[in-house]
Amino acid sequence: MKEKGLNALWLEEEIDIFYLTGMRFSMAKLCIGEKEAFLLVDGRYHAMAKEGASECEVLLYESGKTLPLFQKGEKRIGFDGATLPFARYEALRKGYPEQEWVSFPGPMRSVRVCKEKGELEALQRAADLTWQGYCMLVKELREGVSEAELAWSFERFCRENGASGLAFSPIIAFGEKSAYPHHRASPENRLKKGDIVLIDIGAVVDDYSGDMTRTLFFGEPNQQLLQLQEWVYEAYQIAFAAARPGMLAGELDECVHSYFREKGVDPLFCHGLGHGIGLEVHEYPRLRYNGADRDCPLLCDMVFTIEPGLYLPGVGGIRYENTVVLTQEGAKSLYPK
Amino acid sequence: MKEKGLNALWLEEEIDIFYLTGMRFSMAKLCIGEKEAFLLVDGRYHAMAKEGASECEVLLYESGKTLPLFQKGEKRIGFDGATLPFARYEALRKGYPEQEWVSFPGPMRSVRVCKEKGELEALQRAADLTWQGYCMLVKELREGVSEAELAWSFERFCRENGASGLAFSPIIAFGEKSAYPHHRASPENRLKKGDIVLIDIGAVVDDYSGDMTRTLFFGEPNQQLLQLQEWVYEAYQIAFAAARPGMLAGELDECVHSYFREKGVDPLFCHGLGHGIGLEVHEYPRLRYNGADRDCPLLCDMVFTIEPGLYLPGVGGIRYENTVVLTQEGAKSLYPK
Repeated sequence: MKEKGLNALWLEEEIDIFYLTGMRFSMAKLCIGEKEAFLLVDGRYHAMAKEGASECEVLLYESGKTLPLFQKGEKRIGFDGATLPFARYEALRKGYPEQEWVSFPGPMRSVRVCKEKGELEALQRAADLTWQGYCMLVKELREGVSEAELAWSFERFCRENGASGLAFSPIIAFGEKSAYPHHRASPENRLKKGDIVLIDIGAVVDDYSGDMTRTLFFGEPNQQLLQLQEWVYEAYQIAFAAARPGMLAGELDECVHSYFREKGVDPLFCHGLGHGIGLEVHEYPRLRYNGADRDCPLLCDMVFTIEPGLYLPGVGGIRYENTVVLTQEGAKSLYPK
Repeated sequence: MKEKGLNALWLEEEIDIFYLTGMRFSMAKLCIGEKEAFLLVDGRYHAMAKEGASECEVLLYESGKTLPLFQKGEKRIGFDGATLPFARYEALRKGYPEQEWVSFPGPMRSVRVCKEKGELEALQRAADLTWQGYCMLVKELREGVSEAELAWSFERFCRENGASGLAFSPIIAFGEKSAYPHHRASPENRLKKGDIVLIDIGAVVDDYSGDMTRTLFFGEPNQQLLQLQEWVYEAYQIAFAAARPGMLAGELDECVHSYFREKGVDPLFCHGLGHGIGLEVHEYPRLRYNGADRDCPLLCDMVFTIEPGLYLPGVGGIRYENTVVLTQEGAKSLYPK
């Protein structure tokens, strides 16, 4: 806030407010000044917030009603331009015309990007449960089972073993469908001999997300896909070995593109190399050579995915992914090989 | 679009794009001009979109890259100010500096607010399954069961009987916790004799949401809460009978406040009377006498919830809710009494 010359920060993102207060509200606002903080909630949450939020003053927010904040020379108020809707910005400007509203995209990113000990432990628990669920799924692969059946089987397993939910709808894709990186598990697509099976899953444990992908062959492998699988796994190893604090997010992605270019398959790698992960499954930074976060330096205790993939439309796709934590010595995977 | 003098509409909300294309993408953009429409997706969805979107041209979107749209005198482009983040607005203005970007909050609201036949059928299926799940839960009420166990039991029932998911995390609250309108089901809070039980649940079937609430007593009722329950149910009946096409959203809420004022309990009704429901559990309009949508006229084939509630902090809360569809003859509940 000081760096940006801000007197206060205005947050509306549910997950940022959860990170700071430990409570989840929809449509709450948190205003952090130099000395004090106000939490504004509506009637649904007022009693709960008053009981739980000890480090800030809780106020009842009614839309259209201006609250007596900003009385002590707080002129420059930062808001999260990356998430605050345009109309909310206009309402703030109108509601508090004496303040100067300054867009500060992702103000909590730099705070949330490096994980604390308790967060790393929760991420490991999420990874452990996700892995157990994966091992269970592998045993359930049989001719005729549908993608949707496996997806539900994974979800039920996680929920009955400590997950509060899933980090995302399981991507379970058989055969050609694996060429769609974000395929939705379907009740119609059933497993056949010779199919490739792509499994991209994650459980949420203690509010933190798991995320991993494996691709395997059910029966006789397709030779073309077998070759892609070898390259994808090698690309993963290259990125995993290269990751170091101080490196830029885009540089790590570039290592993989450079390897794929060498093999002549770079156009088949159609998404970023990975993404930060924590309370949200997709957090800052995105690891992409040509993306907005490419110049974000990788830091110790950052947790992100490494997930190269190659996709051949009409044939199938391969992805290999682990969530890793960055240490002074390099990346450490939260998942077994 | 014509009314607002717009040449094109720029949409980024996933659910609006799903409504229009039948496909779900994250971070897609749909640009609807007078004669043509463009769907912009990133590499993860490109193949899928090309296959599925027949009525628009599919383009591969790369962030930072300007696309050759708006060449035919399309100057005034509307965007959804209610959801588009401020920074995205800035990026559009920068990326397409020749266009005039005009905030048009909720451009799809008036299209989505009245439900078509197929939508009404899906909403009824969601209601039917939600009700079945409720009946199942009532049978599972026994001393010592936790809120979280019931929540999971409901979810499992729905998922195994045709739901793709839940419309929201089940609000199952025992005893005092029922006074928090948005309590999260906890594994610690276990049912005791004499507890009040609030159950607010909804399944998603064929993309449409269910939403209903019942409050019941487990054992001997608390007399104070019994009185509140009577008033809440009467308030529901008043609103249900009053709803007519042409009435304003805020007026319906006002009927209930007026009744509660008569009984001297209006301050205990701390949330809106209801909300539109469809592809999203909370849609336009919010039924609230002092809310932004208060002047929205109720129309035939609008589907919304009616859910008055009274909450006594430290004692307990009561809510009664059905999802209803508005017809020329008045409201019709999608749920049994």
